[in-house]
Amino acid sequence: MTLQGTSIIGNSRGSATGNTFCATNPATRESLAVDFHAADTAEVDRAASLAGSTSIAFGATSGRARAALLRAIADKIEKLGDVLVERATAETGLPEGRIQMERGRTCGQLRLFAAMAEDGSWVEARVDHGDPNRQPLPKPDVRSMLRPVGPVAVFCASNFPLAFSVAGGDTAAALAAGCPVVVKAHHAHPGTAELVGTAVAAAVASCGLPEGVFSLLFGSGREVGSALVIHPSIKAVGFTGSRAGGRALMDLAAARPEPIPVYAEMSSINPVFILPGALAERAKAIAVGLHGSVTMGVGQFCTNPGLVMLGADLDGSELLGEFCQLMSASPEATMLTGGICQAYRDGVAGHSANSHVRKLAAADATADVFTGAAAVFEADGDAFLSDASLKDELFGPATLIVRHSSIGQLLEIARALEGQLTVTIQGTEADLAENAELLQILETKTGRLLFNGFPTGVEVCHAMVHGGPYPATSDGRSTSVGTQAVFRFTRPVCYQNWPDNLLPEELREANPLGISRLVDGVRA
Amino acid sequence: MTLQGTSIIGNSRGSATGNTFCATNPATRESLAVDFHAADTAEVDRAASLAGSTSIAFGATSGRARAALLRAIADKIEKLGDVLVERATAETGLPEGRIQMERGRTCGQLRLFAAMAEDGSWVEARVDHGDPNRQPLPKPDVRSMLRPVGPVAVFCASNFPLAFSVAGGDTAAALAAGCPVVVKAHHAHPGTAELVGTAVAAAVASCGLPEGVFSLLFGSGREVGSALVIHPSIKAVGFTGSRAGGRALMDLAAARPEPIPVYAEMSSINPVFILPGALAERAKAIAVGLHGSVTMGVGQFCTNPGLVMLGADLDGSELLGEFCQLMSASPEATMLTGGICQAYRDGVAGHSANSHVRKLAAADATADVFTGAAAVFEADGDAFLSDASLKDELFGPATLIVRHSSIGQLLEIARALEGQLTVTIQGTEADLAENAELLQILETKTGRLLFNGFPTGVEVCHAMVHGGPYPATSDGRSTSVGTQAVFRFTRPVCYQNWPDNLLPEELREANPLGISRLVDGVRA
Repeated sequence: MTLQGTSIIGNSRGSATGNTFCATNPATRESLAVDFHAADTAEVDRAASLAGSTSIAFGATSGRARAALLRAIADKIEKLGDVLVERATAETGLPEGRIQMERGRTCGQLRLFAAMAEDGSWVEARVDHGDPNRQPLPKPDVRSMLRPVGPVAVFCASNFPLAFSVAGGDTAAALAAGCPVVVKAHHAHPGTAELVGTAVAAAVASCGLPEGVFSLLFGSGREVGSALVIHPSIKAVGFTGSRAGGRALMDLAAARPEPIPVYAEMSSINPVFILPGALAERAKAIAVGLHGSVTMGVGQFCTNPGLVMLGADLDGSELLGEFCQLMSASPEATMLTGGICQAYRDGVAGHSANSHVRKLAAADATADVFTGAAAVFEADGDAFLSDASLKDELFGPATLIVRHSSIGQLLEIARALEGQLTVTIQGTEADLAENAELLQILETKTGRLLFNGFPTGVEVCHAMVHGGPYPATSDGRSTSVGTQAVFRFTRPVCYQNWPDNLLPEELREANPLGISRLVDGVRA
Repeated sequence: MTLQGTSIIGNSRGSATGNTFCATNPATRESLAVDFHAADTAEVDRAASLAGSTSIAFGATSGRARAALLRAIADKIEKLGDVLVERATAETGLPEGRIQMERGRTCGQLRLFAAMAEDGSWVEARVDHGDPNRQPLPKPDVRSMLRPVGPVAVFCASNFPLAFSVAGGDTAAALAAGCPVVVKAHHAHPGTAELVGTAVAAAVASCGLPEGVFSLLFGSGREVGSALVIHPSIKAVGFTGSRAGGRALMDLAAARPEPIPVYAEMSSINPVFILPGALAERAKAIAVGLHGSVTMGVGQFCTNPGLVMLGADLDGSELLGEFCQLMSASPEATMLTGGICQAYRDGVAGHSANSHVRKLAAADATADVFTGAAAVFEADGDAFLSDASLKDELFGPATLIVRHSSIGQLLEIARALEGQLTVTIQGTEADLAENAELLQILETKTGRLLFNGFPTGVEVCHAMVHGGPYPATSDGRSTSVGTQAVFRFTRPVCYQNWPDNLLPEELREANPLGISRLVDGVRA
């Protein structure tokens, strides 16, 4: 199919006027066809208003209908075939195999949410039967379930052109919940967005759903996204990106006449704690695993381990020797965009110039501005505690080894950590037993605790929590991966003494959907 | 027991220096002993820091331990006996019977949360088993549950000196979740707060829990509350009060370096829609019920019905005649504070002077500034749509009858409503069937839909949703009444490949607590 370079606003396309931009192949620096046209204010308003006017009808659809939509989207994405893989590869510099895997994950995720919507138990239905004879006052019949919040604005992520973009986790969760979606494409992969966007729009149409269920807007700066977030029809926001970008959206949303929830995944250094027993048992294996995790995807994962805690009293030579050798030998690789690459190089230069920081290893780097080369830094615990720059995320294939001077300092550093998406323990069971206080502190800092693994690779499942306290995310009460993400876009509603035939199916006395419910306080 | 008039900060008391204020008996205008001393900045910091340093230990307690605490609090509140009832009556002007009922509700609520904490299933445990042989990558074992967010600041409400105050719903929910609580007393009923606060502090001590689990701060202005909300140790806020006050706390919390959730219940006019069939069937019964709901507690409930929709084409004479007669005959009654009474009188005067509004009835009112007299106003649908002042909450025993000109205008008014705690339909089943679109719109505006009831009276149960879209509350994703309120103060945490013996009991393979869990996507 031929790209048109215009926004998708329900059944129609945006105008081919106004500001244009195009995608760049980061591997070749070539501009890619076609020119993309930023949505203007009227188009943003049209997309959001269409979503608003569709919201009630879409919210009234059954779980079966939403499941059919989610499966149709997955089918149509798969039918795009090689065109999608080629375009996504060209726009991101990511290898073809990675894009294929990401496509599989994206479609698997859509189908997981479809199964959840079809099953229906996710709405957390509660039924409290009334008692008209209760004294001194009759007890009403009260029934509650989760209902959609309304139209959701979803921002595509730079580093996941499929799984966290047009038809990614937030879109799948919002549609499963019954919320229309207006997506803001990422300026770095607009062609991928248009391809997936046409698939989603076609699925909406093929399922006989109203056009406002889905729109896709292009824009190269912040105007389109900001206009979307402050639009009165938008009731929630999903975002994956930088801390500055996420906080800006949080502040905009909080200042609205009607503030709305923002789910921004922003910044995490994903500390890995290497405890003495583990070091003694398997230093080399840890080095190999850590190298794989730090360099995976040129370090461009939000779960990239950017901090490794290792006691100064421990002999780290085997682990660090192996790790540094692997890191030095890692070929530099194309990063997602020139901007991301420049920010990474600036960060590496900052560490290199920092008198508190020792450079332990670095892969060869050319002057080429679109590639990133692996690097390993080391600092003392004192320096980490006193120098705020060492606690910031450095997005790319680098990590900082911090040598804490004592258990006391280790605990102090744990307490000083900001919120994280993940915290990893490399330890033996004896290590864990000896570090009970450390574990308790770390649990308060993160959404996911890992034992003897590495944080990259986020399983899409029911129990996954890909979230964490600020600034890992804007709202540590939720996850962006796994079926619990549906709760982002819902709110509870209760019905008091409501006629049975007018209740949502989930709440009717006969439980026609056969879902799991809490009936008079008991799971039934 | 003798009141001391000083803040309770863990095991110790605040200083008896600094600004003082005292409570006033609104029925007699007499100042009540003793002088209360506002917490100073250092005391706010001490209470919040103590909560922060206790947070991990309290979060690690079992559901059984928290249940014991909640039950001990209820027992100790009951043991306060008549002293509490007398003081609360004196400080609020509320009748003794009402205070006794509210005490029963408060203790019942504490015990309901105790039962929930003890049962343990509320944590929404999820277990996804791993598969080391999965290709191309092993599947990790991932388990998640809800964990406490950390210290919670709770603001006492003017209109519920017990049920939404020191040991009210937010405190019960936060303690059940495992969060320490710092309460800001309401300046109008500080003696009630001190009595209940001593009961809570004694319960904490008798259960052998660390002192930082509970503190109570006094203050007459906004300084103490603001200092609390911006304190870095505080991780969530519960508030019941005015729209301006709630929004101010929301803005403070959103502007923090680390923004935190605010659950503010603020403002609702709780519309009642009287549909034609119901009017024809039982006009008089509706009038009687509406009168009871509007005047209950001198109209000082957040669920007070401040708006009644009645078609202009319908003969409302029987309903309005009866209603107006009942309202006119209602004796004026003491309101909670001089400030609340003045605001009510200003609102009534505003309606009376509004050329769009007709005064249908008013009870006799003396010039006494501490009493409120019932009033009934009427306006056309056009006026309601164009005059923003008619959509504002008028806190007191008044209601506005709006006569819409057509079904079209009724739908327009429904769409124009702000978020509400409740929406009530008075109708027959035929009315409901004929007003499907109206019901769909109204569902998006509220947390609770009632059929043929009245909104005052909020059942404390599992399915209750006492919440709703902004400005009814700051965060429509939650409820302040019923067991679902516990979710306000939690966040999900997952454990990946974590050793079974170090997992929280709720997530261990053998399920030692016997709780309901989602295991590999299936309820077990």
